[in-house]
Amino acid sequence: MLSRNDSHDLTKPERHAVPRLGVLGGGQLAKMTALAAAQMGCEVFVLERQPEFPADSLDTHSIIADWDDPQQLLQLGSMVDVVTLENEFVSIEALEALSSAGHIVRPTAATMKLVRDKYLQKLTLADFGLPVPRFSAVPDRAAARRFGFPAVLKKRCHSYDGKGNATVRTAGELDAAWARLDGDHNPLYVEELCALRMELAVIVTRAVDGDMVCYPVVETVNRDHICHVVKVPSGVPEPVATLVADMARRATAALCAVGGFGIEFFLCEDGRVLVNEIAPRVHNTGHYTIEACVCSQFENHLRAVMGWPLGLPEMRAPAAAMVNLLGSGDGPGTPFGLFQALSVPGAHVHVYGKARSARGRKMGHVTALGPTADAALATASKAANYIRFGE
Amino acid sequence: MLSRNDSHDLTKPERHAVPRLGVLGGGQLAKMTALAAAQMGCEVFVLERQPEFPADSLDTHSIIADWDDPQQLLQLGSMVDVVTLENEFVSIEALEALSSAGHIVRPTAATMKLVRDKYLQKLTLADFGLPVPRFSAVPDRAAARRFGFPAVLKKRCHSYDGKGNATVRTAGELDAAWARLDGDHNPLYVEELCALRMELAVIVTRAVDGDMVCYPVVETVNRDHICHVVKVPSGVPEPVATLVADMARRATAALCAVGGFGIEFFLCEDGRVLVNEIAPRVHNTGHYTIEACVCSQFENHLRAVMGWPLGLPEMRAPAAAMVNLLGSGDGPGTPFGLFQALSVPGAHVHVYGKARSARGRKMGHVTALGPTADAALATASKAANYIRFGE
Repeated sequence: MLSRNDSHDLTKPERHAVPRLGVLGGGQLAKMTALAAAQMGCEVFVLERQPEFPADSLDTHSIIADWDDPQQLLQLGSMVDVVTLENEFVSIEALEALSSAGHIVRPTAATMKLVRDKYLQKLTLADFGLPVPRFSAVPDRAAARRFGFPAVLKKRCHSYDGKGNATVRTAGELDAAWARLDGDHNPLYVEELCALRMELAVIVTRAVDGDMVCYPVVETVNRDHICHVVKVPSGVPEPVATLVADMARRATAALCAVGGFGIEFFLCEDGRVLVNEIAPRVHNTGHYTIEACVCSQFENHLRAVMGWPLGLPEMRAPAAAMVNLLGSGDGPGTPFGLFQALSVPGAHVHVYGKARSARGRKMGHVTALGPTADAALATASKAANYIRFGE
Repeated sequence: MLSRNDSHDLTKPERHAVPRLGVLGGGQLAKMTALAAAQMGCEVFVLERQPEFPADSLDTHSIIADWDDPQQLLQLGSMVDVVTLENEFVSIEALEALSSAGHIVRPTAATMKLVRDKYLQKLTLADFGLPVPRFSAVPDRAAARRFGFPAVLKKRCHSYDGKGNATVRTAGELDAAWARLDGDHNPLYVEELCALRMELAVIVTRAVDGDMVCYPVVETVNRDHICHVVKVPSGVPEPVATLVADMARRATAALCAVGGFGIEFFLCEDGRVLVNEIAPRVHNTGHYTIEACVCSQFENHLRAVMGWPLGLPEMRAPAAAMVNLLGSGDGPGTPFGLFQALSVPGAHVHVYGKARSARGRKMGHVTALGPTADAALATASKAANYIRFGE
């Protein structure tokens, strides 16, 4: 189903070269990319499975369809210059069909193949000499037992925000975890349970020609495996930040990435710095860049996939912090407490415009800049605490 | 004609209180307001006379109709919480019909009545003790002759970017100027021709409760009466900047403004600071606030008209500059040279997405921040010089 504004007739030949970006997925990441695109006069076409999605308020063209349906992807491909993704759940076959038909897909199906399966992702990173937690494929429970405990059992694909992970402290806990992740039907792998001092993340944007920009290293504070707070700078010693940034660049290059990638790290109690996982897209830990950096992760993603020069990732302020606004329960997608939140000087409130709130669902975020990350966090938290999504 | 995205059905009762803003006019000012609104999860409904307008890429709802038609305005009013304007050309009668029917219009019809007629505007400002150039209504040529020359003959209504002004240096030039402005059919007034040292401008946003924020004083450099460059800070001595900011606040209050207002000033060779004119809306001289200020003029306009608390107008950098991208002739609304412009580090390129370019038409702008206004201007100009609209 193609829904579009009357003023555009896609059946007519193109009259002039308005840059056109196709996005698979229409959530908040697509919305914020579309905001950057709109500023530069670039049209955005979104393919999403359900109507009423965040990017819906921004694009005049949308296809409501299954993003794993190659025919629908081909229709999108024929409308745009470049197709990009806002999530890693699109099937590789559909992406391959798109590029085989001559459409430009960035990042490529080959990159997505390596990233989407987190076991393959770790193998690839390890092959390129990047330190990762000790890990192993576990075709059956016996393999998991051989790996030893404590450990984290993980789905290889389709996991996010901690969904698809289970901590197994002793052999006795294995059966329950295996059942919960339905290991007989989902390919799983197992990873050492690292004692963490801190979790870190970096956004790297890589251009078609291999040029890369690397945003500052941030500290991420997770609750129940969901990103809750981002603080920048991270406060780690300069040599650690330099090492992390270098690893982020190497990981991005190893995957032949094009576009914005979010790279998450473990800083372990024993001092090791390990790559945790990579998201092949703009990332929650980079939302602060909208206000805090010269060129946001979203504008740079657009520039990268359109084949344009990258912008500066430098900070405009000494520090920044971002607080996610998570749904506290079922309810409308419109927040309570917006008025009070807007009364906090220097707080930047983002509301994604999702149709419904659900417990733990990402409904918006608040960013603030400041002289230190803690000062920025105080401002952002003050505003965020006024807001509530869901009854 | 109502054109909208399939996923919204306006005939259904409202399910939850998504804030809804109606905008009369769909040009670049509406587009940039809609970008700020989208970030906060606010829906925007635009009424514009022709399809394919800049804000079209951002709102999912648009009415293509004459904005002087009260029935169309009432339809818009019934869809939204608040109606605002992106230009001063909407008829007062239509606005009055809208507010008589119980819809909220900000700024009000009463304010628009005072601002829209530039002679009435000057009378109002003078009444409130604000210094303006010497001026007089001129019902006929004899009245203009009594005023004396040199002078500037101006249309009282519907003039912008120098359209509707004529400089008359001697009595011998009066007839030609009178004919050009069609003074027998358009109400005119006359103003002293000020010898200018500099033109200045200030954006003030005024809330429903009278709270005001005042952005920094900028220098505007005009060519052929069209804003070409904005530099901030303006470089005028601190006491002059303080005086200008104070006058801007008083002028905004005098007009009972609600929303963002652009106030233009003459700094005369003889040292006088005079109010030149007031635009009852977000303004070209405030575009730099998107990147340079904590809360942009667009977000603050939205906050003001929605009845929300105002944001901080403070600069995030020592200085900034904006260069307008004007059409060099007829042609597509898509620029040549975007790639090169994006290669300039720190340049923020805005392309409005107008359907067609025309000579002198505002097609986009470039903003840069920097340690000084001149350094910022060098960056913005470098990028702007790569871009061309029109063959």
